[in-house]
Amino acid sequence: MDDMDNIFNKRQSILIVNVIVNGKAGDIFVNDSGAIAAIGDGVRGQHKGEADLVIDGDGAIALPGLANTHTHAAMSLLRGYADDMILQDWLSQKIWPLEAHLTGNDVYWGTKLACLEMIKSGTTAFNDMYFMMDEAARAVDESGIRAVLSYGFIDLFNVEKRENECKATEKLASQIRSMNNPRIKAAVGPHAIYTVSPDGLKWCAEFAKEQKIAIHIHLSETEKEVTDCVSQHGKRPAALLDDCGILTPKTIAAHCCWLDDAECTLLGKRGVTASHNPASNMKLATNRAMPIRQLMAAGANVCLGTDGCASNNNLDMFEEMKTAALLQKFFWNDPTVLPAPAALAMATTNGAKVLGFGTGTLAVGAPADIVLVSARTACNTPLHNATSNLVYSCSGAAVETTICDGRVLMLNREIPDEDTILAGAAKAAHELVSRSQSS
Amino acid sequence: MDDMDNIFNKRQSILIVNVIVNGKAGDIFVNDSGAIAAIGDGVRGQHKGEADLVIDGDGAIALPGLANTHTHAAMSLLRGYADDMILQDWLSQKIWPLEAHLTGNDVYWGTKLACLEMIKSGTTAFNDMYFMMDEAARAVDESGIRAVLSYGFIDLFNVEKRENECKATEKLASQIRSMNNPRIKAAVGPHAIYTVSPDGLKWCAEFAKEQKIAIHIHLSETEKEVTDCVSQHGKRPAALLDDCGILTPKTIAAHCCWLDDAECTLLGKRGVTASHNPASNMKLATNRAMPIRQLMAAGANVCLGTDGCASNNNLDMFEEMKTAALLQKFFWNDPTVLPAPAALAMATTNGAKVLGFGTGTLAVGAPADIVLVSARTACNTPLHNATSNLVYSCSGAAVETTICDGRVLMLNREIPDEDTILAGAAKAAHELVSRSQSS
Repeated sequence: MDDMDNIFNKRQSILIVNVIVNGKAGDIFVNDSGAIAAIGDGVRGQHKGEADLVIDGDGAIALPGLANTHTHAAMSLLRGYADDMILQDWLSQKIWPLEAHLTGNDVYWGTKLACLEMIKSGTTAFNDMYFMMDEAARAVDESGIRAVLSYGFIDLFNVEKRENECKATEKLASQIRSMNNPRIKAAVGPHAIYTVSPDGLKWCAEFAKEQKIAIHIHLSETEKEVTDCVSQHGKRPAALLDDCGILTPKTIAAHCCWLDDAECTLLGKRGVTASHNPASNMKLATNRAMPIRQLMAAGANVCLGTDGCASNNNLDMFEEMKTAALLQKFFWNDPTVLPAPAALAMATTNGAKVLGFGTGTLAVGAPADIVLVSARTACNTPLHNATSNLVYSCSGAAVETTICDGRVLMLNREIPDEDTILAGAAKAAHELVSRSQSS
Repeated sequence: MDDMDNIFNKRQSILIVNVIVNGKAGDIFVNDSGAIAAIGDGVRGQHKGEADLVIDGDGAIALPGLANTHTHAAMSLLRGYADDMILQDWLSQKIWPLEAHLTGNDVYWGTKLACLEMIKSGTTAFNDMYFMMDEAARAVDESGIRAVLSYGFIDLFNVEKRENECKATEKLASQIRSMNNPRIKAAVGPHAIYTVSPDGLKWCAEFAKEQKIAIHIHLSETEKEVTDCVSQHGKRPAALLDDCGILTPKTIAAHCCWLDDAECTLLGKRGVTASHNPASNMKLATNRAMPIRQLMAAGANVCLGTDGCASNNNLDMFEEMKTAALLQKFFWNDPTVLPAPAALAMATTNGAKVLGFGTGTLAVGAPADIVLVSARTACNTPLHNATSNLVYSCSGAAVETTICDGRVLMLNREIPDEDTILAGAAKAAHELVSRSQSS
C-alpha cells in the first residue's frame, strides 16, 4: 500500500500496454511532462526501458478523460437530501434552507467528494458554478483533475448586490490566477436571466472578455424562463443574452431545453457551447429536451453535463451519455437521433474543446488525460462495438484507471485517499443538516 | 481461491453482520434451508456459533434481490451489435438475420452471460422469453438465480405454425417440470397480438390456466400496434387480449406504453402485472411512457424490466429504476410521479410477487434472496436517504454481495466462474457473427 501510494498523483513516464486505443490494439507512452508521446503497436518495445511505471491494460479500452461541462460539485453533500418534489417547493423548502448553512468547509468537502466520484467514473475535467469557490479550487488542486470554476453571480436585479457579485467574481479570478495551476481556470458565472440583471450580464460579458475567460450560464431550462422573458423584454432568452454580449465562443450555456430554431441559429452563429443535462431535465420535469439536431445543424458546439448531485443524483458521465442518447431519441421520436459516437464526442472532444483543456482525443502531443475501461466485464462482453458498449452498456464503474495531466489518479479502481474523502464528506453533510435543523 | 470457492453456490447457514436492514443497523441470519431466520440487533450474539459462514457487511445496505420482469436474456450476445436505427430496419437488417443463426449453445452462453450480469448487479430473479429455452434453463440452473422461462410463441396467423408453437410450449413446460428445480418455472409466452393469432392466444390462455403457470406477453409497445389492432379488430389490444382470456393475475404484460385509461382499468380489474421497460422504450423511441399512475390507480401491479440487451443495452435494474423514475417524471411533466420508494418497490416486492418467488422483502421466513449494496462508495455518500441513493445515485456496480435461495453467488464482487463465462459468451458471440456473415 505504501509502495503503491508512491505512484499516485505525480508526474512520471508511464507505459500503458495492452489496450484498445483509437479502435486498435496497442500501447500508449506518456512522457514525464504529462503529454502522450507515442501510441501504437510497437510502442512497448521502444519505451519499455525508460518508463517509470508500466500499466498492463489487460485489453482495456483507452479513452480520453471525460469532460463534465455543467455541475455544482459541492452539491454532492445534498445527494438524496430531497427528491421527487415540485421544483419551487424543492428549492424553497429543501435546497435553499440547507444551502443557507453552507460553510467553506462544506464546499471543500463536497467538491472533494465530487472530484473523487468523477475520478472513479473517468471524468478528468469539469465546469463548475457555485459559492465559496476558493474552497472548491483548493479541493480540485488536491484532487489532480481539471476544472473551470465560476462564482454563481446572482444580483436579483439589485444594484448593491450587483456590486458585491462583481467583487466576488473579480476576487475568484484573482485567487485562481494566483494559484498558478494550469489545471484550474476561472470563469464568469452569471447564473441566469431570471437572477441577473441586464447590467449584471453586461458586466459579466465585459469582464470575461477582458480576462479572456469563459462564461458559464443557465439558459432556457424551463418554459417559464422563456415566457417570463418574452413578457418582460419582448424577446426570447438567447436574444436577451446576445444583447448583453453573453453569447461568445467561450460561453457554455447549460440546459438549453426550450430554445426555438432561431435561438439555435443564433447560438451557432456566435459559436456558443450548449451543455446538455438530460438526467436533471428529466428528474425536474422540464418537459422539453434540448433541440440537439438544430443546435448541431446551426454549428453550435454541444456537450454534456450531469448538473449537481441534488438533481441527478450522481456525476457519472457514462450514465449521462446513455441518458442523453435515450432522451433525445424518445423526445424527438426518432431512434437515429444522437447515435453512440456523437454521444461519446459530446463527453470527450466537444467538452475538452470548450473547457480549453487539450483536444479530448488520444493523440501524440495531447495532454495525457486517459481513462482505461475494463474489457473483462459483462458490460463489454461481447465487444461487437466498443463505442456502443461505452455509451449504452457500461457505467462509470467499468473505469479501472484514470490518468490526468500525466498523473495516475486511480489505478485498478484504487485511489489512495478514498476512505478519508468519503468520511470527511459524510461528516460535513451530517453536520450541515444538523446545523440547519437546530436553527 | 480454492477455499473461497467452497463458500459459493451451496446451502449453508450464513450470518451477515453490520448491515442496514429495513432502515436499521443490524444483522441477518440465514438458515441452511435457504430462509431468513432472524433479523435485528441481537442476531449476532444469538447465531454466531452456529453460522457456517459469517459475512461482514461493513455498513452495507441490505436489500431483497431485485426482480427483472421482462427480458430476453440470451440477447446479451447481441449487445452493441446494432443501435441507433429505425425499429423495422434494426429488426429486419440486423437482429433477425443474426438470430436466424442462433444455436442452443448460443442461448446457453448468452443466458450464462445474462445471469452473470444480473448477479453482479443485484438481480436474483428474472422473467424471460426467447427460443431454445431448455438451454436457457440449463444456464439458469447453473447460475443459482431464479427465473420464469417462456418460449416465445409466434404463429404468424398460420395454423400449422400454431400447432408447432403449442408443442414447443408444452415441451418446455414439461422439460422444466422434470428439472424439479424450485428456482425455475415455466410460463407461456405468446409474443404479442401482431405475431400470435386469436386462436393461438386462446390456446396459450387455456394452457396457462391448466398448468397454473404465468403468461408473459408484449402489450402496446408501439402506437402502430394499437392503430393496427383497432382497424383489424375494432377494439384496442387489451380488449382483444381479454377476449382471448390472456388477462389474468398471472399475466405479465411488458411495455404497456400506449394503454388508454379504459385499458388501464381493465388491467387493474383483471389483476394483471404491467412490466415497465423505460430504457428500451426510450432507445427505440416508442413516443409514449407507460401510464403508471393510471395503472396503479386501477389496481394493476406495476414492476420493472430491462428488456433484452439489444435494446437497452444492459441488465442493470438499478439503472432501470432511475430511468423509470426519470422517464415518468419527464413524460408526464410532473417531478412527483414515481418517487424513489415506489421505483424500488417495483423492482423488489412487486416483481417478486408476480414471479411467485417469495415476498421481495427482507423478513423472517422469507427466502434468503439478499443483496448487499456498499455504503463505502461515493454513490452512498452522504447517506441522507438510502432509498434515494439506491434509485438515483447507485448503479448495480455498488452491489458487493448477492445471495439467492440461501446460496452466496457473489461475495465482495467475486464470482468464481466469471472469467469462464465472459470468455465463453464472447466466443459464442464472435462465432455467431462469423456464421451469419459467411452465409
